Amino acid sequence: MAILSIDFGGTRTRAAWFSHGLNMQARDEAPTPVGQPPSAVIARVIEIARQVVPPGQKPAAIGLCAPGPQAATGLILHAPTLPGWDRIPLAQIVADAFDAPVFMENDANLAALAEYHLGAARGANPALYLTVSTGIGGGAVINGALFTGWRGLAIEPGHIKFPLPDGRIRSLEDLASGTAIGRRAKERLAEGDQPSALRNCAVVDGRTVGLAAAQGDALALDVIAEAGRWLGLGLVCLMHLFNPQAIVIGGSVANLGDLIFNPVREIIAAHLTDPAFNDPDLIRAARLGDDVCLIGAAFYARARSEV
Amino acid sequence: MAILSIDFGGTRTRAAWFSHGLNMQARDEAPTPVGQPPSAVIARVIEIARQVVPPGQKPAAIGLCAPGPQAATGLILHAPTLPGWDRIPLAQIVADAFDAPVFMENDANLAALAEYHLGAARGANPALYLTVSTGIGGGAVINGALFTGWRGLAIEPGHIKFPLPDGRIRSLEDLASGTAIGRRAKERLAEGDQPSALRNCAVVDGRTVGLAAAQGDALALDVIAEAGRWLGLGLVCLMHLFNPQAIVIGGSVANLGDLIFNPVREIIAAHLTDPAFNDPDLIRAARLGDDVCLIGAAFYARARSEV
Repeated sequence: MAILSIDFGGTRTRAAWFSHGLNMQARDEAPTPVGQPPSAVIARVIEIARQVVPPGQKPAAIGLCAPGPQAATGLILHAPTLPGWDRIPLAQIVADAFDAPVFMENDANLAALAEYHLGAARGANPALYLTVSTGIGGGAVINGALFTGWRGLAIEPGHIKFPLPDGRIRSLEDLASGTAIGRRAKERLAEGDQPSALRNCAVVDGRTVGLAAAQGDALALDVIAEAGRWLGLGLVCLMHLFNPQAIVIGGSVANLGDLIFNPVREIIAAHLTDPAFNDPDLIRAARLGDDVCLIGAAFYARARSEV
Repeated sequence: MAILSIDFGGTRTRAAWFSHGLNMQARDEAPTPVGQPPSAVIARVIEIARQVVPPGQKPAAIGLCAPGPQAATGLILHAPTLPGWDRIPLAQIVADAFDAPVFMENDANLAALAEYHLGAARGANPALYLTVSTGIGGGAVINGALFTGWRGLAIEPGHIKFPLPDGRIRSLEDLASGTAIGRRAKERLAEGDQPSALRNCAVVDGRTVGLAAAQGDALALDVIAEAGRWLGLGLVCLMHLFNPQAIVIGGSVANLGDLIFNPVREIIAAHLTDPAFNDPDLIRAARLGDDVCLIGAAFYARARSEV
């Protein structure tokens, strides 16, 4: 009754073999060849996964983690990290390759499940999870079970929309992700002549803006604070709608620490209807690191295959 | 095993006596004396409720509907229709008056439950309910049960926050409720000299703006379309977060029909990440009318008292 877990990410693909008791017994990872067509990418994902299957064995179930909102039918609808993918039936292709049932879910949903069972949100009800990195994804665990809505598309906090001062309407993902931080810093550098260490960087992206901010660079600090205020407004929305007991935040942007969380906290303090919606322990750092989706996918496949 | 149901509203208080099978056997209503201090208001609410209790009988349970977000402990935290009320232990006072257990909930939550069991959202999962009138309230039914979050404060879609072009941050309730429509029309009348039938109205409020718009008044139509765009942005947020099967919309603003729903639909069409989040049958008009909260409160009290 072993479980194969596959975390198909926009940058790397990870695979692991779990016992029924969810002990990880083999693990492998390799870059995802995102530049190639979907069929070649999928073939490579299957190849990586085969590395962890013990000779002569077959998984009882496969947990498959993939980016973007997903229909309950196992289609990837689209994802910022997978340009050109449109309604690809990934779950069916992987099921055929291993002759085993595949339970596919969104990366942030599976991370939410893992952080709820083993990480920072243990026992919290409701427990929300946000990953803030290249994009912004989210998951919700309500009454101990993954909440995915009618067609399996919930929850997508990266797609909360806000109007900008110039009238355009933008996603939270376009305002507060690492990608957004990099783009906004480039705009600010082009707009004026404010001195900044970023003017000497070959690459201006979320990572280098974070490094410059940590050194006290005023422009970088401003850009991150702006992203933090948008993220705070997104969290205010989640708090008024879900009244969560915990919101776990993972992803590279969360690693910026107080640089991003101070403006988040200011916006929350200013805009909650009632302090009862908040709690000192409400917003928590993710705990499970890089294997969070592998663990979540294994949990999910075990639970779903035993129903 | 009869149930007393009380709908304590900012304008009127309604009470009904239900059989265990939820047949309404007596009903009364009267204005809520909102100008008076909380103790006098509560005494009057209890007096109205006593009218429907048959002589010599005692309710097995009391369902109590009240405005605003409420702690699971039965406190009213605050409500736009009840200025000056702050953490009033209404549930306990009513329980003492009738010597029966009280199950108190927010008006929109109970309306959600009633529309789910008997109205426009029958069988939908998740089912969301929004009331758009003086304020904006909401409720969610997930897997057939009322979803109220950690401390009983979910869901409050009226408190989704949006930034305005001038940098101020405002609640959806301040942008799209009937109160907001009236206020915005007054601002527009004061700002310029655009001709409008509203200049001849003694009272400019949500109701009179709606009447003027129905006659084709351009200023009134503009103000309602603007409120509709904000409401649409709020619904986009709810759709991406909950992936609901139905959103039932009640309240006086919903009665404006296409005047408000056309701009709502335009914003939804323009800003959903994927059409799979939508459905022709997703947004529905409320069906249960003025007694929706009495019915929801009776349902709720019966379910909770039998756990």
